[in-house]
Amino acid sequence: MTDVANRLTEREALALAVSVARRGPGGGANPRVGCVILAPGDPASPRSVLGVGWHRGAGTPHAEVAAIAAARTADPAVNLTGATAIVTLQPCNSTGRTGPCAHALASAGIARVRYAVEDPAADRAGSDAYLAGHAVDVRGPRRFEPGEFDEIALDSARELVHAWLSSMALGRPYVTLKIATTLDARIAAPDGTSQWITGAAARANAHEVRAEVGAIVVGSGTVAADDPTLTARTAEGGLAEHQPLRVVLGLRDVPAQARLRGPGGELVHIRSRDPRAALRTLADAGVTHALVEGGAQVSAAFLRAGLADEITAYIAPKLLGGGLSAIADFGVATLADAAEFAFLSPRMLGEDVLLTARARPETFHGKDR
Amino acid sequence: MTDVANRLTEREALALAVSVARRGPGGGANPRVGCVILAPGDPASPRSVLGVGWHRGAGTPHAEVAAIAAARTADPAVNLTGATAIVTLQPCNSTGRTGPCAHALASAGIARVRYAVEDPAADRAGSDAYLAGHAVDVRGPRRFEPGEFDEIALDSARELVHAWLSSMALGRPYVTLKIATTLDARIAAPDGTSQWITGAAARANAHEVRAEVGAIVVGSGTVAADDPTLTARTAEGGLAEHQPLRVVLGLRDVPAQARLRGPGGELVHIRSRDPRAALRTLADAGVTHALVEGGAQVSAAFLRAGLADEITAYIAPKLLGGGLSAIADFGVATLADAAEFAFLSPRMLGEDVLLTARARPETFHGKDR
Ligand SMILES: NC(=O)c1ccc[n+]([C@@H]2O[C@H](COP(=O)([O-])OP(=O)(O)OC[C@H]3O[C@@H](n4cnc5c(N)ncnc54)[C@H](OP(=O)(O)O)[C@@H]3O)[C@@H](O)[C@H]2O)c1
Ligand SMILES: NC(=O)c1ccc[n+]([C@@H]2O[C@H](COP(=O)([O-])OP(=O)(O)OC[C@H]3O[C@@H](n4cnc5c(N)ncnc54)[C@H](OP(=O)(O)O)[C@@H]3O)[C@@H](O)[C@H]2O)c1
Repeated sequence: MTDVANRLTEREALALAVSVARRGPGGGANPRVGCVILAPGDPASPRSVLGVGWHRGAGTPHAEVAAIAAARTADPAVNLTGATAIVTLQPCNSTGRTGPCAHALASAGIARVRYAVEDPAADRAGSDAYLAGHAVDVRGPRRFEPGEFDEIALDSARELVHAWLSSMALGRPYVTLKIATTLDARIAAPDGTSQWITGAAARANAHEVRAEVGAIVVGSGTVAADDPTLTARTAEGGLAEHQPLRVVLGLRDVPAQARLRGPGGELVHIRSRDPRAALRTLADAGVTHALVEGGAQVSAAFLRAGLADEITAYIAPKLLGGGLSAIADFGVATLADAAEFAFLSPRMLGEDVLLTARARPETFHGKDR
Repeated sequence: MTDVANRLTEREALALAVSVARRGPGGGANPRVGCVILAPGDPASPRSVLGVGWHRGAGTPHAEVAAIAAARTADPAVNLTGATAIVTLQPCNSTGRTGPCAHALASAGIARVRYAVEDPAADRAGSDAYLAGHAVDVRGPRRFEPGEFDEIALDSARELVHAWLSSMALGRPYVTLKIATTLDARIAAPDGTSQWITGAAARANAHEVRAEVGAIVVGSGTVAADDPTLTARTAEGGLAEHQPLRVVLGLRDVPAQARLRGPGGELVHIRSRDPRAALRTLADAGVTHALVEGGAQVSAAFLRAGLADEITAYIAPKLLGGGLSAIADFGVATLADAAEFAFLSPRMLGEDVLLTARARPETFHGKDR
């Protein structure tokens, strides 16, 4: 690798693996994974980077295989015997379209593997056992030495696959409800105006998130009211490389002139009001992470069905005192029955605040509700 | 002083001055101020603490005078000539009930004064000029050396007097609207249940804030619905030392059995629906900081009158989808007319988030609206 620092410690290699993992598409059938191969040597000392790989999406090589291939492309005579692989996610051990990564690592001669996040499926398939059985020193997060890796890098690695792993556990796409509201949780003023509630930084962040999901879902009411494009745009205003499916939920037709029909992801009109049916359709299309962008009724429908795994709320420092509330009635009458979540750390985005709230494990919604 | 570290740098002395300033009552006619007197010597080296003082409320000595008195009580033979006074707020130079602090400092022999926050009134009264004219080396924040004081301590010093200074500038009490809401900004569920939306940490913080204001204001609707006590309670559940006035706004009687009539601050029933009239009554009672705790209609009335200087929102990670919104209609029809604020940094409080939003200087509400 000549385009990256060519000697890294294992800690630094994990940060690099996380960064390159992000280049892959999110929200699809496969997780985003990054892998960095380091030359043999003292774990705490900087060593040559032999190869860097990431997963580019379903049907392409996994990150580990891509990193091995990159090492061989960079130096056809490379010897990987005794090398270390730093991977963001536990290597797979099942024969998919590309063969098990655990086998690829062992047969390349890799002697040491560190992965930042466990994958229960890889574990069930005996990934660690296979590697250990082939004399590879393999460890995941439960067995790291204190301080072996940076907590921030580990957190980032977990966040990268949070929706994907949750989707595997839930057996359906992971659902994020996104709302952009005033401090009194209005998504439109009494006269219907709703653009723009939040500022440029919040909108830029929302576009980054769109580029990381498999589908954006809105109700036919939002299509009628706002004629949105539902594309992921870059900071420069162009279309991002990865465009999520654009999904409209509702019985009404999508107008022939709708901007949704313009350049962007594939348009999927689900002529139904059933969020569960919508998620089945999306799962069949390989979507593991769906971003529900409203409006109030469709968000409420997901909550009512117990299908809201995460709320991201972009909150502007404004008050309206009237207009449309972010979430319509979803059947809660009393405070004790409120839908409960747990906040992650809040952050400022320009003049706005981003709050992320996740379903709490103990109240995990919708596994089979 | 034997009860504090007895040698401090000037940076450390400012942190101590801020801490002791907090012991004074907030929200009243006078600001909370702290003062630490250090023995002569090298500004950057630790020096003996000769006296520590803070202002205990209207009619008692100002912090500077209290610190001088404390030094003399600790050591009747103390010589303050050449000593340094570190003060959280610019010393006054007007003859109130206690005489100008600038004179007291100079005549005690203090040779060096550093104050963390400017007071425009002290400035107009020529405080710095008086001190400089008496050979005192005096500096405020505009003339600090880079790094002379800790930014966090300076911030805390500003926060301590933010409401008071704003009140002086506005010519009326500074108004904080407090709301405790779900993430969809509901303050009560459809069946009227509203206790408790937020958790223990948020409620404890709300009690600390109550102990720092001059008055708590609620509408007669909240009195009827919740029968609140509106007291400031300590972590142990007892009454805090300082109890704000308990103010009810509205034409209805306060029930004879209302808990508001129990132990706590003085009950003031303002038989009016005019927030401006209410603030005049409170100003006459010496209140400079009023905390409006709802309900939805009274909060809206303050917003409609342009009399909301700050919003503090305790937000619980819950969704209701219905019930009472935090802020009732206050006359805004379109997004461009929303009341606009600026967020301070958000913070977690237990499982909840605290958002503070302030009126932006350029849209400062209610100076004469
Ligand atoms: N600030 C923001 O973040 C944001 C985001 C989005 C929208 N908005 C605003 O929200 C407003 C639109 O919200 P909305 O609540 O009116 O519309 P919506 O939720 O987007 O769409 C409601 C429509 O969706 C269909 N639908 C599908 N499944 C449903 C279900 N389970 N329950 C009920 N309806 C279902 C129904 O139409 P059919 O008859 O076709 O089935 C229904 O009329 C607009 O003012 C828009 O500007 C704001
Ligand atoms: N979660 C929270 O932070 C929180 C805090 C407080 C209250 N709450 C909830 O809020 C609800 C009460 O709110 P609310 O909006 O019904 O009552 P409110 O705002 O407390 O009181 C409304 C009453 O105040 C009087 N009033 C005084 N000035 C007024 C003005 N300028 N405009 C209109 N009315 C004025 C009127 O009564 P008169 O006829 O007597 O003049 C009016 O009916 C309860 O459910 C309570 O639990 C929640």
